[in-house]
Amino acid sequence: MGVILVHIEGYDPAPWIDELKRQAPDLDARARPDVDDPAAVEVAITWRLPFGVYRTFPNLRLIQSMAAGVDHILADPERPPRVPVARVVDPWMARSMVHHVTLAVLRWHRRMDWLEGRRATASWPTGIVFDADAVRVGVLGLGNLGQAVARAMQDLGFEAAGWSRSPKAIDGLVCHHGPDGLRDLAAWSSVLVCLLPLTAETAGILNAGLFALMPEGSLLVNVGRGGHLVEDDLTAALDSGRLAAAALDVFGTEPLPAGHRFWGDNRIYLTPHIASEINPVTATRAFVENIRRVRAGEAPVGLIDPAKGY
Amino acid sequence: MGVILVHIEGYDPAPWIDELKRQAPDLDARARPDVDDPAAVEVAITWRLPFGVYRTFPNLRLIQSMAAGVDHILADPERPPRVPVARVVDPWMARSMVHHVTLAVLRWHRRMDWLEGRRATASWPTGIVFDADAVRVGVLGLGNLGQAVARAMQDLGFEAAGWSRSPKAIDGLVCHHGPDGLRDLAAWSSVLVCLLPLTAETAGILNAGLFALMPEGSLLVNVGRGGHLVEDDLTAALDSGRLAAAALDVFGTEPLPAGHRFWGDNRIYLTPHIASEINPVTATRAFVENIRRVRAGEAPVGLIDPAKGY
Repeated sequence: MGVILVHIEGYDPAPWIDELKRQAPDLDARARPDVDDPAAVEVAITWRLPFGVYRTFPNLRLIQSMAAGVDHILADPERPPRVPVARVVDPWMARSMVHHVTLAVLRWHRRMDWLEGRRATASWPTGIVFDADAVRVGVLGLGNLGQAVARAMQDLGFEAAGWSRSPKAIDGLVCHHGPDGLRDLAAWSSVLVCLLPLTAETAGILNAGLFALMPEGSLLVNVGRGGHLVEDDLTAALDSGRLAAAALDVFGTEPLPAGHRFWGDNRIYLTPHIASEINPVTATRAFVENIRRVRAGEAPVGLIDPAKGY
Repeated sequence: MGVILVHIEGYDPAPWIDELKRQAPDLDARARPDVDDPAAVEVAITWRLPFGVYRTFPNLRLIQSMAAGVDHILADPERPPRVPVARVVDPWMARSMVHHVTLAVLRWHRRMDWLEGRRATASWPTGIVFDADAVRVGVLGLGNLGQAVARAMQDLGFEAAGWSRSPKAIDGLVCHHGPDGLRDLAAWSSVLVCLLPLTAETAGILNAGLFALMPEGSLLVNVGRGGHLVEDDLTAALDSGRLAAAALDVFGTEPLPAGHRFWGDNRIYLTPHIASEINPVTATRAFVENIRRVRAGEAPVGLIDPAKGY
């Protein structure tokens, strides 16, 4: 059995190595400085391993990305093409996304920040009612995360509908598509959740034109990419009251720069790209399974096609 | 057909009377000052009717609580024991309760207050992970609200289990009972949700002895009654770190007095008894149905056993 190399550029891999050993005590997991013999490396679990290093491991049998994306691996011009590459596939990431969006929606719906703010007065008004029938959640992007979020909203008794670029049919969910469908969904939704991939077509999709269609006092949840949002349009929509709040987990520049105005805007729920953070315990389960698979001569889960790039 | 008395201590009953008449125009619904003849009162729909008043209605056929709890009725030492007492059973209230508890659990689990507090530094630490597998929600009280909450926690991918005084069998849910079962559940739970009726047996059940069994850093959610909680024991458990947070929606004195230390304790999520706010439209539907039932000689929905207290 060879060495399992763990490398996370810019971060200490020790907690991940410890977790690997906890879950599979006979694995010989090591950080780069602890690898004496490059020929001993059998599997590389990586985030942004410096270019040119993969080719120094003549007996490498698997390159396992620590992310859902593999662009940081495929970009290495010296990557040995014969070695299979796998992205991380972790069902717990969908659960985390559901939790993140649910927290944002309930925080807005149940006026949590307003109630907390009232504590300074040591008194509450009477007659507070939360009209859950009026909450309509529109989900932009209907991949596995988008579908999981829409179902979770329905489980909570909220209305939900979705939108994707091309037509989709999903049991129990109204699905819109195309430019007209996007406008229809925005006009209907009191909450918009962005779970789209970032492409030339979706960049800047969260803009003044879209916000103008939404009901007064709505919520925007961006868990796609910072590039989906036109930041100045968000501030204007919050100022006008069109949006009552926004939950942002992703930003044009990450981490969010210290001088950015969003830090001080308490209408914005800010989180540091953790909606669907990789979890050492659950992701390590996926790594252990893929190590078992390549040793048994089976294909790893999440095997990608380098020609397609995903 | 007799008078339907509507009394909500401290609040104007007029909107409720209007809604009753809207849904059932032939009902003779009145507020207390408009009742000339106590013998005419057939049904009393109440929240905290002053003690001694029920017994002045010789022809009373139903005491209908305006809440899920009936402790405010049973506490009246002069309550006529022959008159049936019903609590409100309303799916709207169950959904609201689920939303309230879900918000509290996710706020704690996803470290929302800590993340918000970090905004003052305009920076976030890296390596934030939320271990949803470690969240185990113990629900005290397995009536319709308790069961709805347990199911919602399972829908979110959290482990859940329940406890009730006497044995219950609920599909897909581990159910404990009795004093030993309570200790077992507390030792297992990283979240305890109190949805018990307030009775002589359950008063003060949320106390130091129970907290001591729970894992470090746990969450307490009290959506039962203020009388379930020993307030000094809660503060001690928060100080020791046994509990990381508590979500309190109910208090020994309501509204929470302005001088109470809970207002300034930011480890406590405070809300003004709105977890399961009653909805005039849907609750009135339940009232109208129960009036029809007692007039037809049928048992009301939500009939309670005064000997048990729920």
